Amino acid sequence: MPSSTKKTISKEPPPPPKGPKITEMTDDTITKNTILVNSQHTNMRLLFLLQKVVQHLHDFAIETRLTTEEWEVAIQFLTDTGKMCSDIRQEFVLLSDVMGLSVLVDSISHPKPPNATIGTLLGPFHTHDAAEMHQGDSICSDGRGEPLLIEGLLTEPDGTPVADAAIDLWHCDANGLYDTQYPNRDHPDMRGIVKTNNNGSFIIKCTRPVAYPIPHDGPVGKLLQKINRHPYRPAHIHFIIEKEGYDRLITALYAKGDPYETSDAVFGVKTSLLYTLDKLGTEKAKKYGMDPEDWYLKWHFKIITKDEAKKLMVQKNQEALTGAATNLILNADGLPEPSPLD
Amino acid sequence: MPSSTKKTISKEPPPPPKGPKITEMTDDTITKNTILVNSQHTNMRLLFLLQKVVQHLHDFAIETRLTTEEWEVAIQFLTDTGKMCSDIRQEFVLLSDVMGLSVLVDSISHPKPPNATIGTLLGPFHTHDAAEMHQGDSICSDGRGEPLLIEGLLTEPDGTPVADAAIDLWHCDANGLYDTQYPNRDHPDMRGIVKTNNNGSFIIKCTRPVAYPIPHDGPVGKLLQKINRHPYRPAHIHFIIEKEGYDRLITALYAKGDPYETSDAVFGVKTSLLYTLDKLGTEKAKKYGMDPEDWYLKWHFKIITKDEAKKLMVQKNQEALTGAATNLILNADGLPEPSPLD
Repeated sequence: MPSSTKKTISKEPPPPPKGPKITEMTDDTITKNTILVNSQHTNMRLLFLLQKVVQHLHDFAIETRLTTEEWEVAIQFLTDTGKMCSDIRQEFVLLSDVMGLSVLVDSISHPKPPNATIGTLLGPFHTHDAAEMHQGDSICSDGRGEPLLIEGLLTEPDGTPVADAAIDLWHCDANGLYDTQYPNRDHPDMRGIVKTNNNGSFIIKCTRPVAYPIPHDGPVGKLLQKINRHPYRPAHIHFIIEKEGYDRLITALYAKGDPYETSDAVFGVKTSLLYTLDKLGTEKAKKYGMDPEDWYLKWHFKIITKDEAKKLMVQKNQEALTGAATNLILNADGLPEPSPLD
Repeated sequence: MPSSTKKTISKEPPPPPKGPKITEMTDDTITKNTILVNSQHTNMRLLFLLQKVVQHLHDFAIETRLTTEEWEVAIQFLTDTGKMCSDIRQEFVLLSDVMGLSVLVDSISHPKPPNATIGTLLGPFHTHDAAEMHQGDSICSDGRGEPLLIEGLLTEPDGTPVADAAIDLWHCDANGLYDTQYPNRDHPDMRGIVKTNNNGSFIIKCTRPVAYPIPHDGPVGKLLQKINRHPYRPAHIHFIIEKEGYDRLITALYAKGDPYETSDAVFGVKTSLLYTLDKLGTEKAKKYGMDPEDWYLKWHFKIITKDEAKKLMVQKNQEALTGAATNLILNADGLPEPSPLD
């Protein structure tokens, strides 16, 4: 290739914004300087989140003495995880689930008093197209599994009934699959919404869920296999309970005695959410047009108001700050961020 | 929907592997238990990396009191970042670059003694199709920018010439774009490989690089904009220097006085890598068929052997462990992992 003698006029980029001067980055200076450069704005909560992201990311690399080759593997893993995501598959949520982050964030962000029903992780199978059902309807089409009748009661912790609340529930079939995992799904199945009566009660038919593996044909499944972890969840039924003025409850009930009760791949099980099924019996079978040998589950859900939930979250966040020698304050949302005086 | 009375036989999943029993996950127990479940294998380095990932991920959520809504934003950001990746675009590398992680990992993984040329981040524009050039060739097609002649010397720190080493260099054109950023690229341009002579010298023609913005039309660019950070890098020329028996040097030379010298968007600049261009002058212009007003850069690169590099890395890793009350040892690769006695 011949040398060019044509002079090209460089396009001048706009002048850089005023900001911290950074140069000569070393192990000792890169973290502080990255945080400085990330702090040239006034969204103090975002500033705090990014400060902590950078600090932990860098501390991770420093403490592990991370190699370039390991960094490359991590970049490829994250890329593959992103590529696996689609309208019906969220591989990053799955990653968060198996790393215990999802249930931790639920616990931090939605703390419950001891006398209310505890929450747990949402999981990736909730949809927004479930149909509203009448009392005693079945959310399942025929042949989905062993029939199960649920009689529920929704109250405040003191027993005050919560009427007209939406109980959104969903579960897998006897094959361990949700409706969304079947090709050509054209309508919701094994999911539905029922409203509570004036006395807070509701009644709905479904089928007995079974233990199943989380989707494990992607990067997250390969990781689990590599570290000798199984992908199974114990049998469970998901619930979202919603009513104006009350804190939305995302929870699930788990089968006591399930082989995976104490090794849930996504850490969702809590003792107070374990159920044991009874046989339905003659009387209820007759009343609801079922078989006496069908299954029966009775559950009492207790929810708290939005105000109580916010107050508890702020109180826990305040406790978390107390004692730590920090420059942090709680903002109007009750979340920690750097004090404006700093 | 009618209640089904058909009994379906559940498929029994395989029994769960023996492992730690986990249940009743709370803020206080989830981290320890996730690490336990991730530790049912004997790849101690991977075990250590995952332990630290989980610890830092959970500490981040706990310290920031992360909300479900913020977690959702993070999941979406990572998903978008993965979706942006393609054969010619690596958005996760870009994210690592702007968060200071790339230059940190290079610094940890490839430490250099003070008398050797320091390394810096690779960046996303290296390719593997650069052509091998002869001494004095130009790596640029016509009209790419103001011509620049580079005279280089490659030695060990004590001055011993390193002959027959591959000098792989690449840079942007006067528009601030690499060849790969133009549509329909059908051959490499502004990149090439030249071998050092017996005395360690090499000579190559290229063009003066200019400051440019990193690709900022994706999730990473949007993040930078949101936090008031500019995406520019100061003008620079990338180098990979490789020879059997020597530690591969990934580095770059930066234009001293560039408007972005002290605010490189990816933190790559180091003082010892700053260059100042001279005018080529009559004599060299005549010798290499160029114009006396063309640019001239002379640089002395100093590389170390693989053995020296490994020794230095292990020494630094050992220093990092010393004093910390840990159960860690350095493995055969010189990388920390838990002691098998634990």
